[in-house]
Amino acid sequence: MSGTDHQSQAPWGGAQPTVVLIAPQMGENIGSAARAMWNFELQRMRLVTPRDGWPNPAAVATASGASRVLDHVRVFDSTADALADMDYVFATTARSRDLTKPVMTPERAMEHARAMTAAGKQVGIMFGPERAGLENVDIAQANALISVPVNPGFASLNLAQCVLLVAYEWRRQTGEDAPEVVEMAGTEFATQVEVEKLYEHFVQRLDTAKFFYPDHKADSMRLNLRNMLSRLPMTQADIQTFHGMLRQFVRWKERGD
Amino acid sequence: MSGTDHQSQAPWGGAQPTVVLIAPQMGENIGSAARAMWNFELQRMRLVTPRDGWPNPAAVATASGASRVLDHVRVFDSTADALADMDYVFATTARSRDLTKPVMTPERAMEHARAMTAAGKQVGIMFGPERAGLENVDIAQANALISVPVNPGFASLNLAQCVLLVAYEWRRQTGEDAPEVVEMAGTEFATQVEVEKLYEHFVQRLDTAKFFYPDHKADSMRLNLRNMLSRLPMTQADIQTFHGMLRQFVRWKERGD
Repeated sequence: MSGTDHQSQAPWGGAQPTVVLIAPQMGENIGSAARAMWNFELQRMRLVTPRDGWPNPAAVATASGASRVLDHVRVFDSTADALADMDYVFATTARSRDLTKPVMTPERAMEHARAMTAAGKQVGIMFGPERAGLENVDIAQANALISVPVNPGFASLNLAQCVLLVAYEWRRQTGEDAPEVVEMAGTEFATQVEVEKLYEHFVQRLDTAKFFYPDHKADSMRLNLRNMLSRLPMTQADIQTFHGMLRQFVRWKERGD
Repeated sequence: MSGTDHQSQAPWGGAQPTVVLIAPQMGENIGSAARAMWNFELQRMRLVTPRDGWPNPAAVATASGASRVLDHVRVFDSTADALADMDYVFATTARSRDLTKPVMTPERAMEHARAMTAAGKQVGIMFGPERAGLENVDIAQANALISVPVNPGFASLNLAQCVLLVAYEWRRQTGEDAPEVVEMAGTEFATQVEVEKLYEHFVQRLDTAKFFYPDHKADSMRLNLRNMLSRLPMTQADIQTFHGMLRQFVRWKERGD
């Protein structure tokens, strides 16, 4: 009905796939799916024959901060209508199926989705009803299947969790600054000269305390200490902490209490 | 209490990380976390001071098919006890923190976890209570943070979802086309319990030397020290070096020369 108007412009939400929930039952699950999506910046949702109609107050209550997803939901009378303007459609499924289709991991599927959406294509991802999953008649309308590589002895993903994993993979494939790099946000690491000065401070105090003993091992002990201080990724704050400790041990000694 | 016996054999469940839930509240969430884990074949769970005690009928009812995870749960009185036999610990956190630690994506973190568990190391992954997340005193005991790259404007992962994403990445890293194992080059890194004991030794000596001053800063000074000791990738030899230094300062003081 409302879904038959094909859009020539990029739809609301930009170049990203559309989540299509087929015959969802509980409004809470629709809301949870919206939250799962919006965690990873997916925002286009379509519903096919939701059991309790639409709008659904339980869905809205559950979605709370992700209401922008629900505000733009489009509802359809049939899977075919919901997919009519799609260029490529994935069907998510827990079980292997008789239907001969390419089966992809979420990772591989979202790689494809990324390439297609970047080329201006419309990509849909179908999710079945909570209990039964997608029927073969719906799956038949998909170009490929997404199968999450779950434990063959225990596959218990609920609807929102399944949406979450796919959305997570979408975000992983498109994250520009995907923080793959191990970062220490804003940390000021110690410079070489600061490490060297800390080493000298250690040696001065430890010499006084007769730590480098016996004599024939003293050189290698100092070398090990120097090596350790350079190897540990100390921050400037760490350096100050150690200087402070060393000074305090001297004060303690001098107090003689 | 039950957690103080160190295991010389690979623990139940084989070479995989251990999920450590800190102060979980609802039994249902513990059960859901167990389900999330078992979907991706993670099976070792530890609990630190679960609000409603243990065993928890609500957890068991929710876990249903994943009851094998709960059957083997170990419960601890403190985070330090739960982590005592771990070689490396991740803390999951939604917010960026003041504590200086490496921050990794789930993907990168599970790459590391895979390399370490393959080398026979024990890896823990801490998750905080449902509402508040981990406290700084717990995070201070971690070697690194895991941060899921969620929408900065909407981060609403619940406990089981957070466990699910990390477990999914674990499974992804250990699947057939997983990346090559990163070499650990035979280095004997310090275990959690060794780091904890070094911290206690530092505190004992520094207390005597009146380092933690003024009083209103003492707690945060101790927290920073604990954090630093976990963050620095110390070897067992490094730990012994520091113990030796601390003992030597005491001898120096006692000699009074």
